[in-house]
Amino acid sequence: MPDHPTAAIVVIGNEILSGRTREGNAHYLAKMLNAHGICLCEIRVVADQQALIVAAVNALRVAYDYVFTSGGIGPTPDDITADAVAAAFGVPLLLHADAKARLEQYYKDKTIDLNTARLRMARIPKGASLIDNPISAAVGFCLGNVYVMAGVPAVFEAMAMHIVPTLPQGTILLSRTIRVEQGEGDIAETLSRFVAQHPDLQIGCYPIHLQHASGYAACVVVRGYEASALDTAVADLRADLAKI
Amino acid sequence: MPDHPTAAIVVIGNEILSGRTREGNAHYLAKMLNAHGICLCEIRVVADQQALIVAAVNALRVAYDYVFTSGGIGPTPDDITADAVAAAFGVPLLLHADAKARLEQYYKDKTIDLNTARLRMARIPKGASLIDNPISAAVGFCLGNVYVMAGVPAVFEAMAMHIVPTLPQGTILLSRTIRVEQGEGDIAETLSRFVAQHPDLQIGCYPIHLQHASGYAACVVVRGYEASALDTAVADLRADLAKI
Repeated sequence: MPDHPTAAIVVIGNEILSGRTREGNAHYLAKMLNAHGICLCEIRVVADQQALIVAAVNALRVAYDYVFTSGGIGPTPDDITADAVAAAFGVPLLLHADAKARLEQYYKDKTIDLNTARLRMARIPKGASLIDNPISAAVGFCLGNVYVMAGVPAVFEAMAMHIVPTLPQGTILLSRTIRVEQGEGDIAETLSRFVAQHPDLQIGCYPIHLQHASGYAACVVVRGYEASALDTAVADLRADLAKI
Repeated sequence: MPDHPTAAIVVIGNEILSGRTREGNAHYLAKMLNAHGICLCEIRVVADQQALIVAAVNALRVAYDYVFTSGGIGPTPDDITADAVAAAFGVPLLLHADAKARLEQYYKDKTIDLNTARLRMARIPKGASLIDNPISAAVGFCLGNVYVMAGVPAVFEAMAMHIVPTLPQGTILLSRTIRVEQGEGDIAETLSRFVAQHPDLQIGCYPIHLQHASGYAACVVVRGYEASALDTAVADLRADLAKI
């Protein structure tokens, strides 16, 4: 595993694309991956259509060390992610004994019938390992470098909290923020010099919307892997910005 | 233009991928496109790297009728979207007289210097038309079927409000929601029969997180293009669900 493992997220759901639901799972996982030293390189949101899910999963699993999916593993007919991931890997989707046993126990405790629809949630691609669902028992799964998780935020978050800490930690990309009471255009030249002098650091500059229209402000975010070099560079930049 | 024009959104920004910022522009535009009869088929979030932006724009502009981008058109060195879109189309990036004139007027009114960094925002790919920015004068642009807009939400929204109403309206995908006080697993079989009987309609089923743990609830969303057929089918489904 490299020092800087990479990842992508595939969010599966018409409800995001229609604007009905504001996506939040990728934002949650982005923060968690960042804190674990895994570089999230891409997020794709695709519709509930098998061909689109297959294409996204297959494109991203060869490009990045990890792919995480969100959504489409429930019992209703719009839940097709397990089918799609099995198809992406060219493996059969089989009833998984352990996944089934977990559902049996969960629904027995609740005196709810484990019907055919609910049993769909125990269909797992051949060769996959299970991801615990401490909330509602229907498991996620991991196949190759693809981690398939629920779309319900509470369950997605529980699965992510279960999985991410088990992955080898990468070198964390540290971040420092400088707030300036100037417009982006005023500090751009200084930032350009900084970028030229520090090819190993990343910068981002984000205007702050002030309630009073009379002034400008911005956040300069500087990121790098080595704390002391980063802090020295940021101190220099802060001093340069103060001169403007 | 087809009755059901399609679209994709490319969100450009390390700040989304690092988890620093929760994406909201795509959600805003998703609702607007949906209301305008344009089917949003995919969202991609990519990092501030030219090769990644070029690849996303080129993949999506041939696959969909419209591509909208968000972010990376400011004056600082992390703003590389105009360069990337010019490269994607293989055209030069040129100082645009009208875009420059708008900046000159805006900064003259504010008695702010239109320096070299701010002038970068008047560099527009050859052949592109401008998208008004009523808030801070730095324009977006349209090249082919690609609409390049700001990342600052207020400016993105103003540009989207300016552009989307000018696009040919498609047939609007209507949506009806049925709330049921049952678990997804209880209604899944009924939904599967409904899907089989109505291949022209789309369904989605989303569990509702109840504060009290004793029960289940879900929203069934049914979507279709013809109001009367949709309403008839939804009334039938509502009746079937009430029998469970």
